Amino acid sequence: MSATAEKFRSISPAEFFYRNKEIAGFANPARALYQAVRELVENALDATDAHGILPNIEVSIERDSVKQYVYRISVKDNGIGIPEKYIPEAFGKVLFSSKYVLRQTRGLFGLGAKMVILYGQMTVGEPAEIISAAINSRRIYSYRIMIDVRENKPIIVSKGVWPNNTGWHGTMVKVAIEGDWSRAKQKILDYIKRTAIVTPYANIVFKTPDGEIYTYLRVTETIPPPPRETKPHPHGVDLELIKTMISETKAQRLIDFISEEFQGVGNVIAERFLTKYGFDPSKDPKTLSKEELELLVKALKEFNEFRKPRADHLSPIGAELIKIGLNSILKPEFVDAVTRKPVVYEGHSIIVEVGIAYGGSIQPSEEVVLLRYANKIPLLYDEKSDVAWKVVSENIDWSYYGIVFPAPLAILVHICGTKIPYKGVGKESIAEVPVIEKEIEEGVRQVARSLKLYLARKQKEEEMMRKAVTIIKYVPEVA
Amino acid sequence: MSATAEKFRSISPAEFFYRNKEIAGFANPARALYQAVRELVENALDATDAHGILPNIEVSIERDSVKQYVYRISVKDNGIGIPEKYIPEAFGKVLFSSKYVLRQTRGLFGLGAKMVILYGQMTVGEPAEIISAAINSRRIYSYRIMIDVRENKPIIVSKGVWPNNTGWHGTMVKVAIEGDWSRAKQKILDYIKRTAIVTPYANIVFKTPDGEIYTYLRVTETIPPPPRETKPHPHGVDLELIKTMISETKAQRLIDFISEEFQGVGNVIAERFLTKYGFDPSKDPKTLSKEELELLVKALKEFNEFRKPRADHLSPIGAELIKIGLNSILKPEFVDAVTRKPVVYEGHSIIVEVGIAYGGSIQPSEEVVLLRYANKIPLLYDEKSDVAWKVVSENIDWSYYGIVFPAPLAILVHICGTKIPYKGVGKESIAEVPVIEKEIEEGVRQVARSLKLYLARKQKEEEMMRKAVTIIKYVPEVA
Ligand SMILES: Nc1ncnc2c1ncn2[C@@H]1O[C@H](COP(=O)(O)OP(=O)(O)O)[C@@H](O)[C@H]1O
Ligand SMILES: Nc1ncnc2c1ncn2[C@@H]1O[C@H](COP(=O)(O)OP(=O)(O)O)[C@@H](O)[C@H]1O
Ligand SMILES: [Mg+2]
Ligand SMILES: [Mg+2]
Ligand SMILES: [Mg+2]
Repeated sequence: MSATAEKFRSISPAEFFYRNKEIAGFANPARALYQAVRELVENALDATDAHGILPNIEVSIERDSVKQYVYRISVKDNGIGIPEKYIPEAFGKVLFSSKYVLRQTRGLFGLGAKMVILYGQMTVGEPAEIISAAINSRRIYSYRIMIDVRENKPIIVSKGVWPNNTGWHGTMVKVAIEGDWSRAKQKILDYIKRTAIVTPYANIVFKTPDGEIYTYLRVTETIPPPPRETKPHPHGVDLELIKTMISETKAQRLIDFISEEFQGVGNVIAERFLTKYGFDPSKDPKTLSKEELELLVKALKEFNEFRKPRADHLSPIGAELIKIGLNSILKPEFVDAVTRKPVVYEGHSIIVEVGIAYGGSIQPSEEVVLLRYANKIPLLYDEKSDVAWKVVSENIDWSYYGIVFPAPLAILVHICGTKIPYKGVGKESIAEVPVIEKEIEEGVRQVARSLKLYLARKQKEEEMMRKAVTIIKYVPEVA
Repeated sequence: MSATAEKFRSISPAEFFYRNKEIAGFANPARALYQAVRELVENALDATDAHGILPNIEVSIERDSVKQYVYRISVKDNGIGIPEKYIPEAFGKVLFSSKYVLRQTRGLFGLGAKMVILYGQMTVGEPAEIISAAINSRRIYSYRIMIDVRENKPIIVSKGVWPNNTGWHGTMVKVAIEGDWSRAKQKILDYIKRTAIVTPYANIVFKTPDGEIYTYLRVTETIPPPPRETKPHPHGVDLELIKTMISETKAQRLIDFISEEFQGVGNVIAERFLTKYGFDPSKDPKTLSKEELELLVKALKEFNEFRKPRADHLSPIGAELIKIGLNSILKPEFVDAVTRKPVVYEGHSIIVEVGIAYGGSIQPSEEVVLLRYANKIPLLYDEKSDVAWKVVSENIDWSYYGIVFPAPLAILVHICGTKIPYKGVGKESIAEVPVIEKEIEEGVRQVARSLKLYLARKQKEEEMMRKAVTIIKYVPEVA
């Protein structure tokens, strides 16, 4: 029996992710370079299109001339910028974010920028540089930052201020990390291309370490309505959530609490709900007992007269754009897409979109080609552990839709919502959440039926053609 | 442009995992039930075999008689117990652990027990109960605990103390969660069975909600030497690690720091190292400049006269036990296994073990059957995103070893070390870390060669048999 006593201690979230960088996608130099670009580009897009700004994004990766394994990444955007006082923590404190609200964003963990900086700090050791001007800021600020891992707080290495004469707003982040461009190149190019496909309203310029420049120019000035912040839907509460909501509400009566703090609940419905389950509408929600809280949660989940979850605060890609995207990447013979009605997962509205492409330039293969997106981020890794893969490879019997493998078949799945149940903080695959699995399945069936119809029509036409040919062939003999 | 200002805030690690329970494996009621059992069983094993105690572990899952979706899990062990003062935080503070040391353990995130309790709190709302007596404790303590999610700290609901008359030591954890036994059953049974296979020195009793009892009785009293705590190997340092080590060391001279705080470095080597890279051996390590630190890290990684990383502090399964395990689960015709030499990943020694089984009762299939373990935990989910899957399905050309699919081929991969680079905190798959990928590949090739020899010998024998038969057939005619 080991005599030594156990040493108990607590670590900060920064130390946690420093020790476990692999879970955030920083498992090797190639993957880390890809992940770093992703995190910074996603922040740049969140700061632009999610606020109605047509994005101009410049990404550059340079190889250090002496240390060949060192890459300097810089990502510049014309977004809303960051108020000066938040710059150090936004980039120097793990689990600090402006995205812990109910709004569709690409970021959601409060981790991405910090992971990039932490990884740079471990492998290269230079501070990261952040230059930013918030909208209407009369100054441009620059910070050089490192992270105090033990304390989970920013170390400000230096700071600069300039007058903002041109009214610029946006952010530029520069960070040096250990990377492996030759192995990461293809994934990074794919990532940027597939991002550009679903953000045709963005200018994206990418300068590679080899000196190549990839430019995706804006093809439309129309930017989809930005996602808006919303309130939780009553069907999605849990005990923890309701306790937090009650501790934060200003409502002093249960009826006001229910009708003000949730989406889809007016005064009339709130009253009917409370009466049905025997709650006193004028009771102070803060005085509910543990048992009453449990009952309330159960009732909120059960009552079926609340309005359906709304989706006007979400920003899906849209069936049209999906079709355009699929046509442009895959050049298929047939394409279709559908945007499903919103569903609710734990208080969050979620919309699933599914596209299908068949034939044309798609090479027949033994498996479905699957293109996955979540909140307009392309997901490139860990496909086989994604719920969408389960749907297309296990749940659907493709022969029912007239598809026999090898077949030239591609499926695109986009999930958007105020929460995406990723399986990991690297945001590469979606967990098997039943309501999402069901939505994807229904969506796939819908577009698969449309393909089936197309194929049947095509077959019929071909048969008619054959008949016509036969008739033509026989006509002379008969005549 | 959206006019509303962004709301910045920081969340506690408890709130982070509460919001993102899917990344810890709690994505749906079935998966959550499985994950909860795992986390508690892994804690029970860490508290026993890792301290040289022959484990007696009782697992029970009961269905609530009224609320059919509620399951009460209880896991009891005869381990080292938890000193009273640490019980609340060990179970009520996320990122609090006794395993943040360099020692091979099943737990490593400081998260498992808390995730189970958090999930129970969200879905059922009852406090968890922990009963524990540390070794030689004259009292047995019981705590009922919930977690303050916002503050990341335990809420002690009630507490009890009894005299420990029988000298019992160990821990019992009881928690109620929402689950789905019928969907989780198979995975949980597999998990327990595959755990029992690599811990043949343990008694494990599992009582299911259906009232069945599965018993795995100890088949040997020999417990492998427990893993021991160790020091980092110099080849695995990074800038962050060296800074932490320097801030914590008592050594006042560089030479003492190098020879005392690292494994594999004696005084002589330390001196040779420092001289080679031009460091003053008597310099106080706390006075090193940023540039000197960078140089030191580079030098520590580069210098090739340090002793190879040691592995006597690790506790592999061992080739013999792997073969016994494979024979007992798969009943193959051929089996072999290898324990590789230790390698170092970021300062951590890692040992890879590989087993192979062929033919017999194994059904031929199009793909390799892969059995994965990490630090003696069976990994059952997310196989296709595991580095071991990449090796067996992409890196190895099986036809070179005389295998043509469909084939009756199974490969077991076990990785043990003081750090396992899991891809997620749910501990289901291992990231693509080059040194580990290489080790697995070498290991697989080694056992595959052994299979190839076996198959060649078998073929030769069969040919000889055929010849013999032919000769016997012709003999009479000739005679
Ligand atoms: N390019 C940017 N423009 C504006 N704000 C940014 C930018 N990058 C990061 N931020 C701010 O820093 C915060 C932290 O970013 P990050 O660590 O990536 O986490 P997350 O994106 O999940 O919130 C963001 O929530 C955002 O408020
Ligand atoms: N059954 C047990 N016996 C003894 N100690 C335990 C047991 N379960 C948990 N602990 C203690 O509680 C700590 C936290 O457990 P957990 O949250 O699962 O994280 P981890 O196992 O990663 O350390 C462990 O490090 C251990 O010290
Ligand atoms: Mg981000
Ligand atoms: Mg994962
Ligand atoms: Mg644990």
